[in-house]
Amino acid sequence: MNFEHLIDLDDLSLDKLNEIIDMASRISKHPEHYRHACSGKILATLFYEPSTRTKMSFEAAMQRLGGTVIGFDNPMGSSVSKGETLQDTVKVVSGYSDILVIRHSRDGAALAAAQASLVPVINAGDGTHMHPTQTLADLVTLMNKAGRLDNLKIGLCGDLKNGRTVHSLIKTMCRYENNSFVLISSPEFALPDYSKDYITDSGASYMETDSLKDSIGGLDVLYMTRMQRERDVNAKESFNILDLETLRLGKPSLCVLHPLPRVDEITKDVDADTRAVYFEQTRYGMYARMSLILNMLGKGLGIEKDQSSEIESKTLCSYSNCITNQETYLKRLYEKDGKELICRYCEHRTKSKE
Amino acid sequence: MNFEHLIDLDDLSLDKLNEIIDMASRISKHPEHYRHACSGKILATLFYEPSTRTKMSFEAAMQRLGGTVIGFDNPMGSSVSKGETLQDTVKVVSGYSDILVIRHSRDGAALAAAQASLVPVINAGDGTHMHPTQTLADLVTLMNKAGRLDNLKIGLCGDLKNGRTVHSLIKTMCRYENNSFVLISSPEFALPDYSKDYITDSGASYMETDSLKDSIGGLDVLYMTRMQRERDVNAKESFNILDLETLRLGKPSLCVLHPLPRVDEITKDVDADTRAVYFEQTRYGMYARMSLILNMLGKGLGIEKDQSSEIESKTLCSYSNCITNQETYLKRLYEKDGKELICRYCEHRTKSKE
Amino acid sequence: MNFEHLIDLDDLSLDKLNEIIDMASRISKHPEHYRHACSGKILATLFYEPSTRTKMSFEAAMQRLGGTVIGFDNPMGSSVSKGETLQDTVKVVSGYSDILVIRHSRDGAALAAAQASLVPVINAGDGTHMHPTQTLADLVTLMNKAGRLDNLKIGLCGDLKNGRTVHSLIKTMCRYENNSFVLISSPEFALPDYSKDYITDSGASYMETDSLKDSIGGLDVLYMTRMQRERDVNAKESFNILDLETLRLGKPSLCVLHPLPRVDEITKDVDADTRAVYFEQTRYGMYARMSLILNMLGKGLGIEKDQSSEIESKTLCSYSNCITNQETYLKRLYEKDGKELICRYCEHRTKSKE
Repeated sequence: MNFEHLIDLDDLSLDKLNEIIDMASRISKHPEHYRHACSGKILATLFYEPSTRTKMSFEAAMQRLGGTVIGFDNPMGSSVSKGETLQDTVKVVSGYSDILVIRHSRDGAALAAAQASLVPVINAGDGTHMHPTQTLADLVTLMNKAGRLDNLKIGLCGDLKNGRTVHSLIKTMCRYENNSFVLISSPEFALPDYSKDYITDSGASYMETDSLKDSIGGLDVLYMTRMQRERDVNAKESFNILDLETLRLGKPSLCVLHPLPRVDEITKDVDADTRAVYFEQTRYGMYARMSLILNMLGKGLGIEKDQSSEIESKTLCSYSNCITNQETYLKRLYEKDGKELICRYCEHRTKSKE
Repeated sequence: MNFEHLIDLDDLSLDKLNEIIDMASRISKHPEHYRHACSGKILATLFYEPSTRTKMSFEAAMQRLGGTVIGFDNPMGSSVSKGETLQDTVKVVSGYSDILVIRHSRDGAALAAAQASLVPVINAGDGTHMHPTQTLADLVTLMNKAGRLDNLKIGLCGDLKNGRTVHSLIKTMCRYENNSFVLISSPEFALPDYSKDYITDSGASYMETDSLKDSIGGLDVLYMTRMQRERDVNAKESFNILDLETLRLGKPSLCVLHPLPRVDEITKDVDADTRAVYFEQTRYGMYARMSLILNMLGKGLGIEKDQSSEIESKTLCSYSNCITNQETYLKRLYEKDGKELICRYCEHRTKSKE
Repeated sequence: MNFEHLIDLDDLSLDKLNEIIDMASRISKHPEHYRHACSGKILATLFYEPSTRTKMSFEAAMQRLGGTVIGFDNPMGSSVSKGETLQDTVKVVSGYSDILVIRHSRDGAALAAAQASLVPVINAGDGTHMHPTQTLADLVTLMNKAGRLDNLKIGLCGDLKNGRTVHSLIKTMCRYENNSFVLISSPEFALPDYSKDYITDSGASYMETDSLKDSIGGLDVLYMTRMQRERDVNAKESFNILDLETLRLGKPSLCVLHPLPRVDEITKDVDADTRAVYFEQTRYGMYARMSLILNMLGKGLGIEKDQSSEIESKTLCSYSNCITNQETYLKRLYEKDGKELICRYCEHRTKSKE
C-alpha cells in the first residue's frame, strides 16, 4: 500500500504538520476556493462508538470540499452484529469509498483498520489512545488566535489524568520551541508521570498548581477540560471553575480553549469574552479536517515509519482494552524495550515472556 | 445578528408569506431551475425528537436546491448525553452549517436555539407550540389545489383540541379575507376557546358541529386530523371517518387535506379520488421548504419584531414543558399583560410575582 | 404507471440482464465517466430492517453517479411508530425522491411498496424472498473474474437450505448455457427439493456431496455461504471450512465468492490468495447497483409481465411472514395453479378455499 494513514499526530514531520496547519488557515479565510477540491470523492465514517460532534465536523468538512459521505454510527445496525470482524468491515467499506474515518472504543482500533483498508484512514479517536484531529483543531486555533505555536505559556486545567486531548496537546506542543506548561489540577487529577517525563525529556518545563486563580495571570493559553461527571459531586470543592471573576485576572491576549462539550467548568457568561475561543475552535476543527483530507487525498502525508524494530510475538497485550484482545486474529506487533514489549496498537507495555 | 429565524409563521408579513408561497408554486412547476440555487451550502438538522418524515422533507428540499445536509436524529448519540446544553450544541453545529433546522419536544426550544445560532434557524416543531413549515405546506397546497387562500369555507375535523397544525392553520387563514370555519368534532375534542376567540377577533366566523356527513356538502376545504391512538378505543363511536360514502356528499371542487400520518380517519379507498390531495400536500411541503430556505439564505424574511415590550423577569414560566424549565440558564423573557406574563418561548401565561 | 420496478431478477429478459451486467463492467473500468449521470436525482432508502452494508453500497452507488440520498434505517424513528401503513410511507417518500430502495423483514414487502410508489422501486431484500441486487453483484463478479456466465462448474457450499442468495444464484445461472452445480453441504443443510427440481427442469445438472475437499478440484466457481451462528456449535464437526490447505486443491482459475459477512467458514489467510474474490465482489456490487440505477432512471428495464393469470381472492396467504398478513389492506393477489394459489407477494402456496 502506497498511501498513508493518520493514526497519531506524532507520525507527521514538523514540516508536514505546519503545512497542514497553514493550509487550514488559508481554507478558513477562503473556504469557497476549495468547494470543488474533492468532488466525486466519498468519505466513509465508521463510528463504532457514537460521537455526533466529531462525525458532523468530518461530514461538514468533506461536503465543504465538494465530496460526499457514507457511514454508520450505530454498530448494532451494521454487519458487526452478525459477527463480522473489524478488518472485514473495513475491507468492504474502503472498497466503496476514497477515504475512511474510524472511531472505536478500543485502543489501537485505528491501526487495525489501517492494516486492512484499501484507502487512507483517519483516526477519529481509538479508546483512550489517540484523537489526532482534535489536537490538530487545537493547533489551528492557537495559530490563528494566539498567532504562534512557540514561546507560549500554556495552562492546562481540569482532569489532566484521564484527558486524552491534554496528553496529545502536550506531546505536540513540546515539538515547538520554548513552550512551557502550567498544570492546574487537584493532586487526584494530576498529569501522569510519563507525560511529565515527556515534557522534561523534550527540554520544556512545567510547574504544578491546584489554583487557577493564582496562575491564570501569567498564561498565554488556558486549555480547560471537562471533569468526569460521576466524580463531580465529591470533587466540586477542589474544582477550578473559569468564571468572569477569574478571567478578569488573565492577560488581554489570553486564549481560552476547551475541547467541548463543557459542563460547568466554564460559566456561560465567559462565552461573550473575546478571549473565549472554544466555539471558534470547533470551526477551526472543521477547517483542520478539510486540510487533512485534502493532503491525504492529494500529495500525501510523507510518513516514513521505521519498522525495523517491529517484532511479532505470541505474547498477549496486557492492556485489556487493546483491540488485539477483541479482534484476536490480529498480528501481535510490538517494539522491544529491554524486557518489555510496547504494543504497536495501543502503546501499552507488557512483560516479554519469550 | 442581522439574519432572521422562522419560529412562528405569524412573524412574517402577509406580503412576505405570499412571496414565499408564490415562489414555492413556481418551484413546483420547474424544480430544475433551482437545482444549483444553494450549492455549496449546508443545512444542519437537529432532531432532538425523531420525525423521519419532516427530516426527509427538509433533506430532499435542500438536496433539490443543490445543497447538502448534516445532522442527527438521535440525541442519545450526541453530546447531549454528555450533559451539553442546547445552546452549546447549537453554537457548535451552526458553526459547521449555513442554515439550521431544529425539532424538539419542548415548547420554546426553537427560540432558545435561535438566540445561540450563528446562522438562520427554522422551527420544525417545538413541543406543542409551533410547526410553521407544516402550515406553509398547507398554504402552498391550498393555493395550488383550491386556487386561492381567501373566500374559503374550511372544515376542520378530528382532534381540534390538541392539534397544533389546526390551531396554526386557523391563525394564518384568518389573515386572509372572508374565510370561514366549520369545526367538526365531538365536544371532547372541541377547539379551545382562545382559538375560537382568535377567529372572532379577526372578524372571521365559525360554526360547530359533531357531524362530518351533515357539514361536508358546504365545504371548499376539508382538513382532516389524526386522533390520538390511545383514545381511539373509547372515542370510536363518536369518530368522524371520511369514507367514499361521505366524500360523495362533498362538492366536486372540494380539497381534502391531512397533515399525515393518517391512521383510520380516512379510508384507503378515498385516496384514488382526485379531491384527496393529502399526498400531493407532502410534495408541496417539500417545495414550500425549498422556497423558505431560498428566501432565508437569500434576501431574508424581513421580520421586524417589536421587542420594546419584552422584559426579563425572575419568575419561572408556569408551563412545565417550557424549554426554560429544562435549560435553566436561559434568560426568562416575557411580555407583560396586566398582571400576567406571557412567556416569549412557549407563549403560556404566568401570574407575575414581582 | 409507466415505469418499472426490480422485485425479482427473473423479471428481466436475458438480454436486459446482460446489458446491465455489461454496463456494470464498463462502469467498473471508468467510474469517472458516470459521475454526473444522475446529478440532481435523489435515491430514497427505506430500510425497515437494518443492513448497513447494503445501505452503504446503494449510497455509494448513487453518490458515484452524482446523485444524493435520503432515507431511514430505523423504523422506530419513523412515522411507522405512529401507525402509518407501509404504502402510505412509500407514497410520501416516493414524492420526495426519484428512485426508491426498500428492505423489509416481510416477504413480499417490495411488491407492496411498488404498488404504491410514484417512482421505480428496487428490492434490497424482502424477508427470505428475494435479494436481486446481491445476485446481480455475483453475476458482475463472475463475468469479470471468471470471464463468462456459461459453461461453469459452480460449487455451492454451506447452508444451502436457508440461503436466499444461493437459491437466487442457481435460478439465474440456469438461464445461461451449460452450467452445472455441485451442492456441498451436510444433509441437514441440503438444497430444498424445489430448487433441485428447478435445476433439472431447466436442463442443467447437479451432484451432491458433503465434502468440500473432495469436490473443490473440479470447480470453476466456489460460492461459500455463512452458517447460522446458533447452529455452529453442534454443526462444527460436519462443517466445510475453506482454509489454505483445501484451497490448494482448487484450480488456478478458481473463483471463490461469498455474499459476506463471513464468520469462520473461510479462514483469514485465504484472503491473500488471488482466487479469493469476495472483497472485490462487494465492489462489483456497487458497480452493479450503479448500472441498475442508471438503467431504471434511463431507458427502463423493459419488463413485460403477463398478468392475465392474476386473480384477486379472499383467501389469506398461509405463509405467516407474508406482507399481506401484516398490511391487511393489501389486495390478495394470486396465480392459480390447480387447487393451489401462489401468492404474488411472497410466492408461497395456499390451498384455494373458493
